Amino acid sequence: MMQKEKLKQAGRIIEEQNIDIWLTLVRETTMNNDPVLPFISKVEFTALTGIMVIKGGRTVVLAGSNDAEGIKQTRLYDEVITYSGNFKNALREFLDERKVLRLAVNYSIEDVASDGLSHGLFLMLQDIVISISDDVEIVSAAPIIAKLRGNKSLAEKKLIVEAIHTAEQIFQDARDFIREGVTEQQIHQFFTDRMKHYEVQSSWQASQCPGVMLGPQSVPGHNAPTEITACKGDVMDIDFGVLKDGYCSDLQRTYYILEDNEECACEEVQRAFDTLKEAVRRAVEFMGPGVTGEEADAEARNYVVSQGYPSWNYALGHQVGRMAHDGGMILAPKSNRYNSSLVEQPMEAGMVFTLEPGIATSRGYVGIEEMVYITETGAEFLSTPQQEIYLLR
Amino acid sequence: MMQKEKLKQAGRIIEEQNIDIWLTLVRETTMNNDPVLPFISKVEFTALTGIMVIKGGRTVVLAGSNDAEGIKQTRLYDEVITYSGNFKNALREFLDERKVLRLAVNYSIEDVASDGLSHGLFLMLQDIVISISDDVEIVSAAPIIAKLRGNKSLAEKKLIVEAIHTAEQIFQDARDFIREGVTEQQIHQFFTDRMKHYEVQSSWQASQCPGVMLGPQSVPGHNAPTEITACKGDVMDIDFGVLKDGYCSDLQRTYYILEDNEECACEEVQRAFDTLKEAVRRAVEFMGPGVTGEEADAEARNYVVSQGYPSWNYALGHQVGRMAHDGGMILAPKSNRYNSSLVEQPMEAGMVFTLEPGIATSRGYVGIEEMVYITETGAEFLSTPQQEIYLLR
Repeated sequence: MMQKEKLKQAGRIIEEQNIDIWLTLVRETTMNNDPVLPFISKVEFTALTGIMVIKGGRTVVLAGSNDAEGIKQTRLYDEVITYSGNFKNALREFLDERKVLRLAVNYSIEDVASDGLSHGLFLMLQDIVISISDDVEIVSAAPIIAKLRGNKSLAEKKLIVEAIHTAEQIFQDARDFIREGVTEQQIHQFFTDRMKHYEVQSSWQASQCPGVMLGPQSVPGHNAPTEITACKGDVMDIDFGVLKDGYCSDLQRTYYILEDNEECACEEVQRAFDTLKEAVRRAVEFMGPGVTGEEADAEARNYVVSQGYPSWNYALGHQVGRMAHDGGMILAPKSNRYNSSLVEQPMEAGMVFTLEPGIATSRGYVGIEEMVYITETGAEFLSTPQQEIYLLR
Repeated sequence: MMQKEKLKQAGRIIEEQNIDIWLTLVRETTMNNDPVLPFISKVEFTALTGIMVIKGGRTVVLAGSNDAEGIKQTRLYDEVITYSGNFKNALREFLDERKVLRLAVNYSIEDVASDGLSHGLFLMLQDIVISISDDVEIVSAAPIIAKLRGNKSLAEKKLIVEAIHTAEQIFQDARDFIREGVTEQQIHQFFTDRMKHYEVQSSWQASQCPGVMLGPQSVPGHNAPTEITACKGDVMDIDFGVLKDGYCSDLQRTYYILEDNEECACEEVQRAFDTLKEAVRRAVEFMGPGVTGEEADAEARNYVVSQGYPSWNYALGHQVGRMAHDGGMILAPKSNRYNSSLVEQPMEAGMVFTLEPGIATSRGYVGIEEMVYITETGAEFLSTPQQEIYLLR
C-alpha cells in the first residue's frame, strides 16, 4: 500500500532531520485540505485531527469520535487515539507526555506542497505549544515533505509512466484530427473526448488541459481554448497531461500545418524545434543526483540563448507526481520569481521532472515538454522524446 | 452568474464591516485551495494570486502572466493586473497605493470555511505589510466569509432544493431494495448506483456516503459500511446527501425491518422516532432571524432529554451549501467541542441548516435529519420531513 510505504519513509526522514514529531494538523478535509494527505491518509476527516509520525517510526492519529472508526479501518497507523470533547487539550497532553522538543508542521513560504497548514490552525497550535514549555520549537516540515513527495517509490514511478503512455497515445490520435480549419476549441474537445475514451482525467483544470497554442495570435500560458482557427503554415504547441490512478503526466508536443507546397516545416520553425530538442538532450545528459535546479536550468537555457534566441521567462522544469506541478525543488534560474531555496537544492534519485523550454516564432509558439527520472547515476527519459515535428496536411 | 452576485454581495459586506480591502491570497490552487474560491472565482491559479474586493465594491485581481488571460476570460472582475517577476513587490505596491488600513484575509481558529489562507502565505503577507506601515492592520475575514456563504441567494436556494429532491428520491428507491439479509455494504452500493443513475455525486467522501448504521452492532459516525446484515427487528439510520450542480443536501432517514408478526415498529423504536420528530418540529417553529445556534440546539435537545433520553453528543445542526458541512455558525451547545463564537451568532434570513438529533436504542440507532431555510420571519422546511418510519418486509 502506497501510504504505508510513505509513512515508513517519513519515519526514516524525520530521524535524519532530527525531528521529534511531524504533525499534520487538519479538520473537515473535504473543505480545506492539506496536499500531503494523499500520501499519509486514505480517508477524509470531519473533525480536528492530528496525524503524527514520531521519532522511531511510530505513527499515531489523534481523531474525533466520528472519524476514529473509519481511520482504524484503513489499518495505516500504529495507533488511533479518540478524543472526545476538546482537541486542544488532547493534543497538548499528547505532546507534553512525549516530551517533544522539535515539532515539524506543514508550512512553507516557498513550497506550496509543504504549506497545507492553515493560519488559523497554526495559531491554535502556537497556543498549545506555548502552554507546554518554552523549549518546544515549531519548525517547518518542508524538508520532510519535499523528500517524501520527491523520492518516488518504484510503484509510483510505474504509475507515472502509465499516465505518460496514455497522454502520448492521445497526442498520436490527434495527428489524424488536426487540420486546416479546426479551432483551438475543437482541438480541446477532441482531447477531452479521448480522455473520456481512455477513462482518465486531465492533469490540471479541465478547461485549460490541453492548453492549445495555435498560430501567432494565440497567447501562451494557461488559457481556455479560443476560436482561433488552424491555417496552413501555423505551428501549434499542445500542453497536455492525464491523471490516471492518482498520478500525472505533463507533456508538450509541436504540430505544424503544412502549406500546399511544403514537405516539411518552414525553416524558422524547424530551427526553433531542433534547438529545443538539443537543449533538452543536453539537460538530461547533465542531470543526476547532486545537480541543483539552477544548474540544470542553466544547461538548457544557455544553449538556447547561445543559438540567438531569447531566454523563456519561466522555469525549465518542475517535479511531477500526484500533481502536474508537484512542488518542491524546481529547475529554474535564481530570480525574483522562483525562490532561491527551491532552485539551490540538489536532485536526488527517484525524482521526476519536466523539461519544457520554448521559443516564440512568427508562426506561433514552439514548445517541447519531456519527463525525466533521476537515477542513482544520472537521468533517463520517462517520456518518448519528440524527435520530429508532427507534420499535418 | 453566481460568482458575480457573490462578489457584489462581498462589496456590500466589507462596507458594513469597515474593511478597506478583502484579500484572498492563493497559489497553485489545484494543490492547495481556499474554500472561499468557488464563490469568487471560476478558474484555477498556477502562480501567486491576490483576489481583492475593495471598499466601494471594485474587484481587482493581481495575477501571474500565465493565469491572467484565463482570468480575464471569466469577465468576473473590474480589473486584472498582470505582474511579471516578483508578486511580493507587486502586492506591496498595490496595497501601499490604495492606502489600506484594515486588510481582511482568510484565517480563523474557529471556522474552517474562513481558514483558507496557509500559514506560509500569511508569513509572506505579514512581511509585506510590515514594510508598508505600522498602521496597517491584518484582520480575519471570517465575518465576511460567514455572511457570504451563509446568506444564500435565491438561485443558490433553488440548487439546494434540487439536491434535496434527488436524495429524497434515492431514499424512496431504497425502500424496495432493503430487506432481511442485505448488508451495509450492499446498501451502500445500491445508493452509489442510484447516484450514478441520477448523475449526481455524493455530498461527502464517497466511501462513507451514505453512512449506513444498521442494527445494534453498527457504530454511529462516519464509517465505511461493514458486512453487518439486516435482521428482522433491526432499525437502520441512513445518513446521505448528494452534490448536484455545485450544491449539497444532507439528510437522514430511519428504516425498520418488521418481524413476521409485526405491523409496525416495536414500541422502543417508535417512541424514539416520534420524540426526534417532535424535537425537530419544535426547533423549526422556534428558529428565525436573531435566534442563536445555542438557543435552537437547546430547544430540540431539552425536549429529547425531557422525554427521558440522553443528550446526543454532537451538534443539532450545521449549515449546508456548496459543502455538506458548510462552516460558519452552527446549532450546538456551548462546550469544549464547539467554539462559542460559532454558537452565539444570531441566524439571518437566507441561511440553510440541518437538524439532526438522534437516539440509540437496543435495536440500533434512530436518526432524523431534515433541512430548513431561514426566512425573514421564521424558518421553513426545505426537505419533506419524514413523518413515519419506513417499514420494510
